[in-house]
Amino acid sequence: MIKKERVERLAQFLREKDIDAFYIGPSADLEYISGLDTHPDERVRGLMVSKEARCFAMTPLLYEEEIVKAFGEVPFYAKWDDHEGFTGAFRRGCEYLGIVGGKIAFNDGVRAVDMLAVRDAMPMEMINGVDLLAGQRSHKDAEELDLMRKAADIADGVTAKLQKFIRPGMKERDVAKKIVEFFEEGGSSKLSFEPIVASGPNGSMPHYSGGERVIGDNDIVILDIGGRYGGYCSDMTRTFFTGTPTEEMKKIYEIVKKSQAAGEAAVKPGATGQDVDRAARQVIVDAGYGKYFFNRVGHGIGIADHESPYMIEGNDVPLEAGNVFSVEPGIYIPGKFGVRIENIVAVRRDGTGEALNHFTREITICGE
Amino acid sequence: MIKKERVERLAQFLREKDIDAFYIGPSADLEYISGLDTHPDERVRGLMVSKEARCFAMTPLLYEEEIVKAFGEVPFYAKWDDHEGFTGAFRRGCEYLGIVGGKIAFNDGVRAVDMLAVRDAMPMEMINGVDLLAGQRSHKDAEELDLMRKAADIADGVTAKLQKFIRPGMKERDVAKKIVEFFEEGGSSKLSFEPIVASGPNGSMPHYSGGERVIGDNDIVILDIGGRYGGYCSDMTRTFFTGTPTEEMKKIYEIVKKSQAAGEAAVKPGATGQDVDRAARQVIVDAGYGKYFFNRVGHGIGIADHESPYMIEGNDVPLEAGNVFSVEPGIYIPGKFGVRIENIVAVRRDGTGEALNHFTREITICGE
Repeated sequence: MIKKERVERLAQFLREKDIDAFYIGPSADLEYISGLDTHPDERVRGLMVSKEARCFAMTPLLYEEEIVKAFGEVPFYAKWDDHEGFTGAFRRGCEYLGIVGGKIAFNDGVRAVDMLAVRDAMPMEMINGVDLLAGQRSHKDAEELDLMRKAADIADGVTAKLQKFIRPGMKERDVAKKIVEFFEEGGSSKLSFEPIVASGPNGSMPHYSGGERVIGDNDIVILDIGGRYGGYCSDMTRTFFTGTPTEEMKKIYEIVKKSQAAGEAAVKPGATGQDVDRAARQVIVDAGYGKYFFNRVGHGIGIADHESPYMIEGNDVPLEAGNVFSVEPGIYIPGKFGVRIENIVAVRRDGTGEALNHFTREITICGE
Repeated sequence: MIKKERVERLAQFLREKDIDAFYIGPSADLEYISGLDTHPDERVRGLMVSKEARCFAMTPLLYEEEIVKAFGEVPFYAKWDDHEGFTGAFRRGCEYLGIVGGKIAFNDGVRAVDMLAVRDAMPMEMINGVDLLAGQRSHKDAEELDLMRKAADIADGVTAKLQKFIRPGMKERDVAKKIVEFFEEGGSSKLSFEPIVASGPNGSMPHYSGGERVIGDNDIVILDIGGRYGGYCSDMTRTFFTGTPTEEMKKIYEIVKKSQAAGEAAVKPGATGQDVDRAARQVIVDAGYGKYFFNRVGHGIGIADHESPYMIEGNDVPLEAGNVFSVEPGIYIPGKFGVRIENIVAVRRDGTGEALNHFTREITICGE
């Protein structure tokens, strides 16, 4: 159902920004506002919210039953069929709200080609709406925090099972499949993202997506996993060993561990995303591995696996209670291996950080 | 690797259309041009092709290893990191090609918010590029057709296994999971789309996505499935019975069967997508069920599960050899049940249709 209080808060923000309306395609924004969990495709559907908190819903006839079930009472349903195409329905909705020719923002659930089709069919000023719900969404309330704690618990449980499960000789892909099963057993019916199982040299690609490599005897394996619970995501990384780590592996592991802990410890009253990034990064730079850590330290998380706030140089907005984000430094040595450790951290009312993951960050050998 | 011949053909088309360049984000277009199979997200990456067939590649540093591996030699890599953001790199790429301020088309792998971020950072004229590769992609060559035949064979095999597997008492979700396994056993490592298992009244939603219903004793179950083989999709639907169909079910099933056959038979020299739609639709309209069939009869298929050409009223472009599409009429009675039958059809050199699926379209009872 459309969550009226969230719509009201959004409308107030639109008035402050002098934007006439905000069109929300399939996305975490749409799920936040309506509970509908679906993905953008050529079947244009979504919700327009005006600055007066009036709405219309876009729905292809093909999805009408589902959309009405998800949204509930919306004063105007702009329906379209395959033959007519969607731009006419979009215009009818805008006429209903009196926003034709107005400033309309689009969110990240809208494809550029669809927005351009609307532009070619109707006068309007197009506004980048990527951040319009970011503020609201980044402050989790007590209910949301409970769901995120539970999601993190499930990920901890999956990681514990993986330690016992992984053996040399298995393909990365087989481990990835098992992760799906373990999440389901834990009560997560849907993944936050495709699990990353990156062994040996594959670990040097932070977003490795292959799976064919057979895990070796003295390998290092990055496990970056996440499942959803009650709509909210978990996301955690541990780097396991299948045998005794070499001195180099141990050294790099300990640097990343120290960096991750420093990032978590930097979450305190008044700290910004930049402070967290710097605290974690400094440890790696000081150890001489700065050039092997080239991405941000963390990202906010909630309904989306990546959302505000970001732990990144340049983000000087102080963290606030209810912010939830990852702290996940890594060292990635091309062609050799990588190490990453990631916890999700929530900001408490007192400004300190609560790690939602509890699985050990010490060196962990599979099977032990 | 970037497929040079396809880039050349695209560049020629850009010259004909007087478009300076075409930016291709993660999408079937990008896979067609480069082989890279990935999805759009906030990490902006892709390929710009100019009308002189010159290119630059966008890559976040985080994906550099994978992108370079996938694309191979590209004269200019516009790299960006989390801190800088992507618009500067995008501009550098455009400067390299000399297209700043020019007419730039965007494909369906680009998010509206990212295109707007570029617009706010650099002068350009934004063009809707949703169809720029559609023509090329809709003419499959012999190699592509072989992959699609094999993909269809695998779907036939999965359907045969489902007939034996499905029993009253199973949840739709359990059947959906089995479909994933069956595809894998058949050699399809990736689905074309999430399988639809819609039993009883859920069958009245053509794109039903639930899974909690327990299949009953005298149920009707729509199974809409597809897997990928060598990058190419299958997509087939059969509607099975778990017990003896009622007279009403039988009657509606036979209408849909006749409609589907009429659609396939309409594929002949000179026929258009509209002709195929009309031929199938007329059977349902004549039987008095026209209002229960509200979507198009079919869609093209290839690397994407939905692409040109579309079997739809208004598409008066004659079909051509190498076109491959679905013929999938259905009757959807809200709250009661639905029936859909779908085959993939390829247009032969002589203009007639070759059904790629061979599983029976007769009434099929599970377990028999």
